[in-house]
Amino acid sequence: MPVLDLAALQKQFHLAPFIADLGMALEAVAAGECTTTLALAPRHLQQNGVVHAGVLATMADHTAGAAAWTLAAAGAAVMTAEIKVSFLRAAVGERLICRARVIKPGRQVCFVEAEVFCLHAGAEQLAAKASATMIVLAPPSP
Amino acid sequence: MPVLDLAALQKQFHLAPFIADLGMALEAVAAGECTTTLALAPRHLQQNGVVHAGVLATMADHTAGAAAWTLAAAGAAVMTAEIKVSFLRAAVGERLICRARVIKPGRQVCFVEAEVFCLHAGAEQLAAKASATMIVLAPPSP
Amino acid sequence: MPVLDLAALQKQFHLAPFIADLGMALEAVAAGECTTTLALAPRHLQQNGVVHAGVLATMADHTAGAAAWTLAAAGAAVMTAEIKVSFLRAAVGERLICRARVIKPGRQVCFVEAEVFCLHAGAEQLAAKASATMIVLAPPSP
Amino acid sequence: MPVLDLAALQKQFHLAPFIADLGMALEAVAAGECTTTLALAPRHLQQNGVVHAGVLATMADHTAGAAAWTLAAAGAAVMTAEIKVSFLRAAVGERLICRARVIKPGRQVCFVEAEVFCLHAGAEQLAAKASATMIVLAPPSP
Repeated sequence: MPVLDLAALQKQFHLAPFIADLGMALEAVAAGECTTTLALAPRHLQQNGVVHAGVLATMADHTAGAAAWTLAAAGAAVMTAEIKVSFLRAAVGERLICRARVIKPGRQVCFVEAEVFCLHAGAEQLAAKASATMIVLAPPSP
Repeated sequence: MPVLDLAALQKQFHLAPFIADLGMALEAVAAGECTTTLALAPRHLQQNGVVHAGVLATMADHTAGAAAWTLAAAGAAVMTAEIKVSFLRAAVGERLICRARVIKPGRQVCFVEAEVFCLHAGAEQLAAKASATMIVLAPPSP
Repeated sequence: MPVLDLAALQKQFHLAPFIADLGMALEAVAAGECTTTLALAPRHLQQNGVVHAGVLATMADHTAGAAAWTLAAAGAAVMTAEIKVSFLRAAVGERLICRARVIKPGRQVCFVEAEVFCLHAGAEQLAAKASATMIVLAPPSP
Repeated sequence: MPVLDLAALQKQFHLAPFIADLGMALEAVAAGECTTTLALAPRHLQQNGVVHAGVLATMADHTAGAAAWTLAAAGAAVMTAEIKVSFLRAAVGERLICRARVIKPGRQVCFVEAEVFCLHAGAEQLAAKASATMIVLAPPSP
């Protein structure tokens, strides 16, 4: 397992234009885990006022990828092979919190789960749950 | 099957703030089918210059929902229960085109597939493929 | 929530020919939860000696369906709309144990997760994890 | 792409005890494609007379794996990372036919789709559709 490089991860977050544009922020990171947040604004919503499924899917995907990255070898890259997101409840509130956790690391692929909670009036509700298969791309041979 | 109300669907598209913000446009619609497009800009990308998985997932989800909606009873609503998206190739190009198709309609749930193509230098490549289960919410009884 | 009818569930288990043929047994049931077991035999294996993915998928599906059924209204039926199974580790051992849990019940659909553990030399290892969307079919109106 | 070794694939099919026990047969194989069949018997059913979801999932998984294997390097092995199966219609009939097709091969992972049809009174109906991510395990270095 590599030494966890939080600064590098923070920098990657801010370098990804779609993540910066969406407003996602990196909250915490540990070996095999990552937490992100997003302050909800009108532009994140569906026409009926609930958070768009695409926002929840994006958070789940990006947070899961970061969690997998914490366990990859130095210089390795991580790509999503596939993600399934189940939408458990309509998300209405002020803030999204996504917590991702590697459930099985591996040399070629890494299995990750992510939960997206919606904070409303001080209470968190689980809005979506995702499972993803990440491809681990080894760093180029020297 | 309801009479297909393209005007209503167009209006719904423009009323969904996240879809408008992302830049998705409704291209075509038919019974059980929907096509959307998105002109790619730097803000849709990952730090490595490829389209973010969240953009592909959002297009797949929204286009699939619209395809399901074309077969729902008048006044019914459609919600995504779950979507799985497989990312087949890095998407690099000028434009995304998403084509969704209902593979099995139903009274309670509707199964839909969506493909997202990336147009680059005049050629389309399949970047992602999704399958979704949509919940059909009957209109309220009179 | 219905009164939990364990006897009825036990009976359903033994009435399903594929489940009886496979050798699955109902171990425990509670509101929103179900545990099943399977004593492994050579016929459950792949050519390389590990348990076939189809055996793990079958246990996950059937146990998830039973967990959902515990929360359905009296007389309602439960059908799998879709299931995704991630195969985390090769399963080698004497016995499989599957634990399923409803993560969000609902009137039309119910979301369930199932984990399949393999018991080998006294230790349990998580071999597969599944998430399923179950369709709840209301009992026929009187 | 390796020279397609049908004999080796047939042999592997009959060497997998669960596949032999279930009654699955290899019907046809080509580069990136595989077709299997299963003659339905009472032991393949649910208590309500329809084919058990586990039978459909097993066929989809094994046929998808074989399709991926046709494109792997000589000596490479293929393992299912994950499979999602959508159950579109209750399967009732005399025979199942599963057709799998690689939608994107790759060095580390391979994306495959499989459709399971049920033959009843001379007509085929699509009962289930699956998408799987297969891990390609390179042959050991000499």
